Amino acid sequence: MKQPVAILGAAGLTGRELILLFSRHPHLEAAVLTSDKYAGERVARVYPELDGICSLAFQKHTLDLPQGCPVLLATPDDVALQAVPELLSRGHRIVDLSGAFRLEPDLFLRTYGKEHPAPEALKEAVYGLPEIQRDRIRKARLVANPGCFPTGCVFILHRLAPFLGEALAVVVDAKSGVSGAGGRTEDAGFAYQNVYENFRAYKVLRHQHNPEIQLHSQSPLPVVFVPHLLPLYRGILSTIYLIWKEKAPDVPALLQQAALAEVFVRYRETPEEIELKKVQNSNYLDLSCRSQGNTTTIVSAIDNLLKGAAGQALQNLNLMLDFEEEAGLLRPVE
Amino acid sequence: MKQPVAILGAAGLTGRELILLFSRHPHLEAAVLTSDKYAGERVARVYPELDGICSLAFQKHTLDLPQGCPVLLATPDDVALQAVPELLSRGHRIVDLSGAFRLEPDLFLRTYGKEHPAPEALKEAVYGLPEIQRDRIRKARLVANPGCFPTGCVFILHRLAPFLGEALAVVVDAKSGVSGAGGRTEDAGFAYQNVYENFRAYKVLRHQHNPEIQLHSQSPLPVVFVPHLLPLYRGILSTIYLIWKEKAPDVPALLQQAALAEVFVRYRETPEEIELKKVQNSNYLDLSCRSQGNTTTIVSAIDNLLKGAAGQALQNLNLMLDFEEEAGLLRPVE
Amino acid sequence: MKQPVAILGAAGLTGRELILLFSRHPHLEAAVLTSDKYAGERVARVYPELDGICSLAFQKHTLDLPQGCPVLLATPDDVALQAVPELLSRGHRIVDLSGAFRLEPDLFLRTYGKEHPAPEALKEAVYGLPEIQRDRIRKARLVANPGCFPTGCVFILHRLAPFLGEALAVVVDAKSGVSGAGGRTEDAGFAYQNVYENFRAYKVLRHQHNPEIQLHSQSPLPVVFVPHLLPLYRGILSTIYLIWKEKAPDVPALLQQAALAEVFVRYRETPEEIELKKVQNSNYLDLSCRSQGNTTTIVSAIDNLLKGAAGQALQNLNLMLDFEEEAGLLRPVE
Amino acid sequence: MKQPVAILGAAGLTGRELILLFSRHPHLEAAVLTSDKYAGERVARVYPELDGICSLAFQKHTLDLPQGCPVLLATPDDVALQAVPELLSRGHRIVDLSGAFRLEPDLFLRTYGKEHPAPEALKEAVYGLPEIQRDRIRKARLVANPGCFPTGCVFILHRLAPFLGEALAVVVDAKSGVSGAGGRTEDAGFAYQNVYENFRAYKVLRHQHNPEIQLHSQSPLPVVFVPHLLPLYRGILSTIYLIWKEKAPDVPALLQQAALAEVFVRYRETPEEIELKKVQNSNYLDLSCRSQGNTTTIVSAIDNLLKGAAGQALQNLNLMLDFEEEAGLLRPVE
Repeated sequence: MKQPVAILGAAGLTGRELILLFSRHPHLEAAVLTSDKYAGERVARVYPELDGICSLAFQKHTLDLPQGCPVLLATPDDVALQAVPELLSRGHRIVDLSGAFRLEPDLFLRTYGKEHPAPEALKEAVYGLPEIQRDRIRKARLVANPGCFPTGCVFILHRLAPFLGEALAVVVDAKSGVSGAGGRTEDAGFAYQNVYENFRAYKVLRHQHNPEIQLHSQSPLPVVFVPHLLPLYRGILSTIYLIWKEKAPDVPALLQQAALAEVFVRYRETPEEIELKKVQNSNYLDLSCRSQGNTTTIVSAIDNLLKGAAGQALQNLNLMLDFEEEAGLLRPVE
Repeated sequence: MKQPVAILGAAGLTGRELILLFSRHPHLEAAVLTSDKYAGERVARVYPELDGICSLAFQKHTLDLPQGCPVLLATPDDVALQAVPELLSRGHRIVDLSGAFRLEPDLFLRTYGKEHPAPEALKEAVYGLPEIQRDRIRKARLVANPGCFPTGCVFILHRLAPFLGEALAVVVDAKSGVSGAGGRTEDAGFAYQNVYENFRAYKVLRHQHNPEIQLHSQSPLPVVFVPHLLPLYRGILSTIYLIWKEKAPDVPALLQQAALAEVFVRYRETPEEIELKKVQNSNYLDLSCRSQGNTTTIVSAIDNLLKGAAGQALQNLNLMLDFEEEAGLLRPVE
Repeated sequence: MKQPVAILGAAGLTGRELILLFSRHPHLEAAVLTSDKYAGERVARVYPELDGICSLAFQKHTLDLPQGCPVLLATPDDVALQAVPELLSRGHRIVDLSGAFRLEPDLFLRTYGKEHPAPEALKEAVYGLPEIQRDRIRKARLVANPGCFPTGCVFILHRLAPFLGEALAVVVDAKSGVSGAGGRTEDAGFAYQNVYENFRAYKVLRHQHNPEIQLHSQSPLPVVFVPHLLPLYRGILSTIYLIWKEKAPDVPALLQQAALAEVFVRYRETPEEIELKKVQNSNYLDLSCRSQGNTTTIVSAIDNLLKGAAGQALQNLNLMLDFEEEAGLLRPVE
Repeated sequence: MKQPVAILGAAGLTGRELILLFSRHPHLEAAVLTSDKYAGERVARVYPELDGICSLAFQKHTLDLPQGCPVLLATPDDVALQAVPELLSRGHRIVDLSGAFRLEPDLFLRTYGKEHPAPEALKEAVYGLPEIQRDRIRKARLVANPGCFPTGCVFILHRLAPFLGEALAVVVDAKSGVSGAGGRTEDAGFAYQNVYENFRAYKVLRHQHNPEIQLHSQSPLPVVFVPHLLPLYRGILSTIYLIWKEKAPDVPALLQQAALAEVFVRYRETPEEIELKKVQNSNYLDLSCRSQGNTTTIVSAIDNLLKGAAGQALQNLNLMLDFEEEAGLLRPVE
């Protein structure tokens, strides 16, 4: 028998991916799906392509969940901030996909302009990037699943952090499809006529993921971060520039070695081979790099809805529940 | 009566734009159009949307042109390298849209791996970015029209060059549609299935426009340059990162002032307002910027086929022939 | 001096095209532009790509217009229904781009479920398809500009109407980009994620343009009509099927001849040559056909915003004011 | 242990889908994959997104296959015409995805202009549309997998065939993404710049699938068929028009009932609900319809690479090998 799992806020883009992932997981199954907007409606009615894959209906948001059942929060930040302390007190283990528990108290205050309302829970939250926190995740009660943009660069910068004292500048230029840029379908900025044949930067130097990148990459230098909106649906490609005081260290060797130890990180020979097509519908982080003179350029690609959200959440849950880390994640997901 | 103009290599993407531009120019008209591939065919047969706009036929490549007629070269580099000395000796004034005459002899050798075959002509070539070389262009016999990527950043860096001695790093992350990435329709990399829903970097740190940017921007620091391929047809957006030793100088004021003096440069209040939609089918360079701490991010956008090629060539020709700089260029072009 | 023109409802997609068209018209210029939504804002602020092309600002909706000035109505139906009688009484000549005056009273009642509120004005309205109503348009006070879908087929069916008594069936399968399908940017159905990589029929056998096609094509048979939404921005391609009792008449010869007499209709040799790329940004109707056995297939293409709306409105206005029919319309428009 | 299967011509678009499908099949596994072009290369090298999913390498085309192993032919017609008789004589059961064995001898001659070279094999070929040939498929040695366009309409027309004697006309207007239109990546017609923002009909009344539709639908009337190329990658939507002599029969009831009996056919309430998004990456045929007066419009949608090719081939193979018909087919496939 499979272990039941609850997904709160299950009707959004990320929720849909989670439902698909659990539908093929060998040990886990989605048992409770909440959505205030679609409460009472069958999943297959809201997402017709899930017909035959998920027979559940959405129910109203609730914290009354089957005892001991792990919980995934795919809700807005404020819902997560309220739900987490209560769920912890009821003994649930949690993967929170919102941004609510990713920053330290001071940084949270500076980023969101208010005190963190659940400092006790925050204290025990573990940042859910398995490639850098695997052991702590295994034992965590609360895992803060990383943002999609940080997932494209934090692992890389974290591995290079010991060398970044010798760098002059660290720049992350990120490009995301509409599903990663957070657009709601009613937002004119995401209307077909404003996206097709168009391209633009947004929240230049002001994106809420910037402090998250800074904190968890442990970069001794400020990380400059600018996101852009691509005329496509899914995927984030990040181009990372490291400018060194002197000659670049052997970044290709460092990253290739780092990738070898990880099931979901693939190093490719040249940065020109990194493309969104190769990671869409998968949980992989693809990367490669090239150095020249005192400059290193690293290119990485992820599927923002999987490695950048739902896939990574499942990877974390697998670790927390002592399953194989890759359980239910090696097949492409649509 | 209008002054006749010859376009050599007129059947490519840039040639098509030139034909359109001359069709509405108040003082100039295309009189000779060459294309070995389409010699003998009417323009409207090759480009049906030019039916009613251009009644000429393409003819075979030739240097026997009407005496005194200005010449635009939209040919490959090697054709331009051969044609230019001969055309100069016949008394033609030339705007060369190829990459043949943009670099100094040493840089040309390092970039293309061979000596420049026409050093005398090269000596008198003027780099055709009106915003930085207007006076020399007026008197030039040979103007080397800039590449599309350099057009997106050289003016900006050139204006800031006096301050760049105080910078630690200069990075240009450029994103181009397929028409700027030089793809031929037979190239599998530009097949619909390989472009749609996809994004990738190419020629990472190795693009032939990099030396051109370095030379003409007069940046005292190396300019790091990486181009990317967008799933769209026309436009280049460049994100430029300047990392300063100390606090950033007042780049917004500098660029706003620089823009005010230029008919084809528009400064917008925030970098989020810069987008391809606003420059497509125009000869404008749009730009804006934001500084924070020791970082400045500048975003610029151009239509690669107009300001990045045919439009700028006409702007140069207007200067050479003492017409208003904007003649035939203020309307959107399709 | 140019003749001033007023455009009511000038801030929509069609209004934007009209502004562009008048900006290059040899004899006419936009003088009054109304938009309640953007009253007081400069056109170039709402449509930045019109910077340098139009220096006017939008003003509130009003019927107090310069005396004798021709009026284009690009408003919703109900605004046009109210405005037209008043404008006529003030002596203005009108091209109405809405659907308000295209149907006879009975058909209007059946289509919209209410009596036409301005029967007197309706009586004198002339259907503004110049290819079938040129002489009446010249003298009209009120021209009802055709819908975009009817423009793709009415001229064709009207020319073939004398033969359609010998047909068994007439089917129009039309495919439109989002700008022709009437979507507002806030409508989730037109969000990028619901349009890209997608295709669907809509208003199957129930589109409001069906009665308009039936009436003005003068087809003795019912015209079956189904529109579809393409994942692109502009253009309508219509595939028209005629099934004949016996062998098909010589439709290619009939249509080729019909096209020869018209400045904005182009007959091409094979139906495979008809494509949206060739008509976008132009005022042309392209068409071709093939017969086999008792079947004829006709393919037509237009730019829905130009020949299907703003361009045709200007073509009508040119006729009404005794200018050349093609004045200001032969160049591609962006 | 899983039953091994051979796929000849496995490196094409359809082959890739087959590899994915077998990777998750409960009883079958791909054991031999041939491709002359990629012989010796690992599948994951040609299709990087299959890394971790398929560890095989392509081998040269061969008929020396494991004894008794079922064979799927995803080769061009001429390769299948040569291979099938030999494979049958060696005792293999075959699903042929090419067009080689779908037509009767006379029709083959008229369609391809040459005698069928393997008339004995042709005689025993069963048309592989499970919804109309299920029992014969179970026992077949050779199944001719239907073309993608026929899959979108033959089942529907076949069910209605008893009524079509009362019809005046049957029209199928089909719209396909590039993967269904058979374009190779080197074909300029499928270059990004010729597909995006474009739409056109092709092979009007002359597509090779037309005779296949006519034959297997058993329509007593000629079926008029025109395919179109959509600016998207996967999916075919067909709009079917039936014009009746008198009032339409109760088509909705007939089709709804037909769908109920089929695992891979879904009837939806309104034709506006049929869209490509809902069938992409699935093996479903979605359909709905509406009648009005003497007209019925039916809309259907499939994923051309799955229900229109690889998925249906597996559905057939499941039947031939006495597995559940839906084995390995209920999950979305990417």
